[in-house]
Amino acid sequence: MTHGFGPVTPPDAQVRVAAEQRQAQLTKPGGSLGRLEEIGNWVAACQGVCPPKQFERARVVVFAGDHGVARHGVSAYPSEVTAQMVANFLGGGAAVNALAVVAGATVRVADISVDGETDSLVAKHKVRRSSGSIDREDALTVEEVEAALAAGKAIADEEIDAGADVLIAGDMGIGNTTPATALIATLTDTEPVAAVGRGTGVDDAGWARKVAAIRDAMRRARPVVKDPVELLRVAAGADFAAMAAFLAQAAARRTPVILDGVVVTAAALVAEDLSAGSSAWWLAGHRSTEPAHNLALQRLRLDPLLDLNMRLGEGSGALTALPLVRAAVAALTEMSTFAEAGVSTADTDSEIATPAETPPAAPDLRK
Amino acid sequence: MTHGFGPVTPPDAQVRVAAEQRQAQLTKPGGSLGRLEEIGNWVAACQGVCPPKQFERARVVVFAGDHGVARHGVSAYPSEVTAQMVANFLGGGAAVNALAVVAGATVRVADISVDGETDSLVAKHKVRRSSGSIDREDALTVEEVEAALAAGKAIADEEIDAGADVLIAGDMGIGNTTPATALIATLTDTEPVAAVGRGTGVDDAGWARKVAAIRDAMRRARPVVKDPVELLRVAAGADFAAMAAFLAQAAARRTPVILDGVVVTAAALVAEDLSAGSSAWWLAGHRSTEPAHNLALQRLRLDPLLDLNMRLGEGSGALTALPLVRAAVAALTEMSTFAEAGVSTADTDSEIATPAETPPAAPDLRK
Repeated sequence: MTHGFGPVTPPDAQVRVAAEQRQAQLTKPGGSLGRLEEIGNWVAACQGVCPPKQFERARVVVFAGDHGVARHGVSAYPSEVTAQMVANFLGGGAAVNALAVVAGATVRVADISVDGETDSLVAKHKVRRSSGSIDREDALTVEEVEAALAAGKAIADEEIDAGADVLIAGDMGIGNTTPATALIATLTDTEPVAAVGRGTGVDDAGWARKVAAIRDAMRRARPVVKDPVELLRVAAGADFAAMAAFLAQAAARRTPVILDGVVVTAAALVAEDLSAGSSAWWLAGHRSTEPAHNLALQRLRLDPLLDLNMRLGEGSGALTALPLVRAAVAALTEMSTFAEAGVSTADTDSEIATPAETPPAAPDLRK
Repeated sequence: MTHGFGPVTPPDAQVRVAAEQRQAQLTKPGGSLGRLEEIGNWVAACQGVCPPKQFERARVVVFAGDHGVARHGVSAYPSEVTAQMVANFLGGGAAVNALAVVAGATVRVADISVDGETDSLVAKHKVRRSSGSIDREDALTVEEVEAALAAGKAIADEEIDAGADVLIAGDMGIGNTTPATALIATLTDTEPVAAVGRGTGVDDAGWARKVAAIRDAMRRARPVVKDPVELLRVAAGADFAAMAAFLAQAAARRTPVILDGVVVTAAALVAEDLSAGSSAWWLAGHRSTEPAHNLALQRLRLDPLLDLNMRLGEGSGALTALPLVRAAVAALTEMSTFAEAGVSTADTDSEIATPAETPPAAPDLRK
C-alpha cells in the first residue's frame, strides 16, 4: 500500500561525486569545512546540479492540530492555546516568524485539526476538530486518515509548484508530544519511561499521566506497527498524517527538507515506512531535549546539525539550522578554485598531503 | 602590566535580568529556545539594552601572518600560500568571503606579519615579515611585540569607531596551528601529544615534526607562562599578539566577539591573561577538530555553539555561528508577549508549570 507516494529515487549520486571533486579544488584544505562540505554536496545531489543554487524560496509549513489526550492532563498548557498560537503565527509574533526572517524563509500555517475556528485560508485542508484521545480511542476514522494524508500531499504539491526549493515542516498542537512519543516508542520498541520528556514543561504528576497515556496508546498501536497508515489512524492524529504525507511527497518530488523536533521527526519515521527511501531527502536540523527525538533520529540514521537544548517546535530548530545549509551552499558555489585564485595546493603525491620540503637555504627574512 | 587594556567591566547584569524576564513573557514555553535564549540575554547585556538591537555591522578581521616554523615541515602547505590567500580574500574567493555574505558580515584583511608583499591598505599595521621560528628562537623582539599589540588594539578601535557592533577575528597563516598549540599546551599544562592536531592536514612524519617543534617551543615558553606579553613574544608571533590585543580591546570597548577556531582561541587565552574578564564578552562559535581548541575552550569555560568538524580558520567557524546569534536576538526582540498576542500562559502557581485540570465535563468535539 503506497497511498500514491513514491517511488522515491535517491538524490543524484553522480552530481554528489562532482560536488566532492569540486570541494577538493576550492581554496581550502580538503575536508576543512567539515559537515558544511557534506551538506553542500547533499544539496547539489538533491538539486541535480553542481555547483548548487542558493535557495530562493525556503518555506515553512506549520501543521496545527489538537489532541484529545491533552484534555487528560499531559501538557502544561490548555488546548485553547493551539488556536491562539495559530493567530499569533498569522500576526507574526511567534518564534517561527522571528526565526524565519533571519533565515530568509516564509511561513504558512495549515490548520489540519485545530479544536477551534481559524481563518478560512488556513483551514483550507482541515480534516476535523482535534483528533481522538489515543490512550482510549482511535485518533481518526479510515476516511479521516485518508483525508489527512491527501491534505499533506496537496500542501507539499502546492508549495513545490509555487517554487519552494527547500521545505520545513513545523508543528503546533498542545499535547502533541504525547502521540509523537507513542509513535516513536512503538516504532523503535522502546519502553515509555525511556522515551517520554517534559514536552513544553509538564510537572511530575503530569509526566506520570503522560507516561500512562503513552503506555496505553502503545498497547493500541503495537498490533498495527507494520502498517503506517493504520498506525497514524490509531495512535497519532490528523496533523501527524498530514506531516508524514508532506514529508514523503517532498521526497517524491525531489525537494530537500530540514526536519525539526520530536513531533516532525515522529511523522518522518512513519513517512519512511509509507515511502521507503524518503529520508535521503531529509536533513536533521537539530537535536531537541525530548528523549524520543534522539531515538527517532538514530533510527533514521540522521545526525542533527545543531544541539542547542531547544524544545519549542513550530519549525524553530529547523529554521535555526537553515542558515548553516545556506552557508554550505554558498561555500560550494561561491568559493574560487586553487587554479582560479592562483593559490598553491598541498603536495598531493599521496592521498594524505605531504608537507613541503624544508628548503635547503631558505632566505631568512625574519631578522 | 596592563599594556593599556581594561579595566574590563562585565556585560550589564541588570539588563541580563530584564532579558530573562522578557524571555518568560514571550509566546513560548519558558526555556524552550534553549541556548538561543541564553545568547539573546547575553547580547542584551553586552549592548546594555533590552530588547537588544539586531546587529547592523558585523565585521570580520582576518589577521594574516607567517611563521618561521613553517619552513621546518610542520604544515601540508608552503608559506607562500599565506600571501596568496590574502589576495584571494581581497578577490572575494575564499571561504570567509562566501560565509560572510550569508551571515551578513563584511571582511577586512590585516597583514600583520605576512612573509611577502601585500596591498598597502592591508599592510597598514604590518609589524614585520613572518615571525621567528619558535622552536629555536624568539618569535619577536620587545619592540615588535609592543608594535603588534598596538596594531591589534588600533584595529579594534578603528572597527568599533566605524560602527562595528559584533566582531569576529579570523586567522590566515601557514604553520600557525603550531604556535597556537604551543600557547594552549603551555597555558593549560598539557603534554604536546595530547594537544597537537593535523592542522590543515599534515601527514604522519609532519605531525611528528610538529610535536617536536611544539615541545621545543614549550620549553622556551614555560619560564614566561605568567607574563602574557613575553609569552606572545617568545612563543607565538606578531599575528597572535595583534589578535590578543584586538580581543582584549573589543572587551574593553564593550563589543561582543564571536571566537573562531584554535588559532583565535589561543590568542583569546592569552588575552584573558592580558586583561582579566575579557572572556565575558566572547562567545565560542564552534569546536574545531584540533584537540588544543577544546582545551582552550574548557579553560575559558566557553561552550561552543557548533560542532561541525570544521578546521579551516579564517573566521569560518564564527561566521557559521553568526546567524544563530542573529536568530537569538530576533527571537528576544521580535516575538510577541503572551499578553500582546492574547495567548494563555501555563498555570504558574508553582515554579514548575502545572497542567490544566482535566475538565469534569469537557465537550467532546471529536466525534
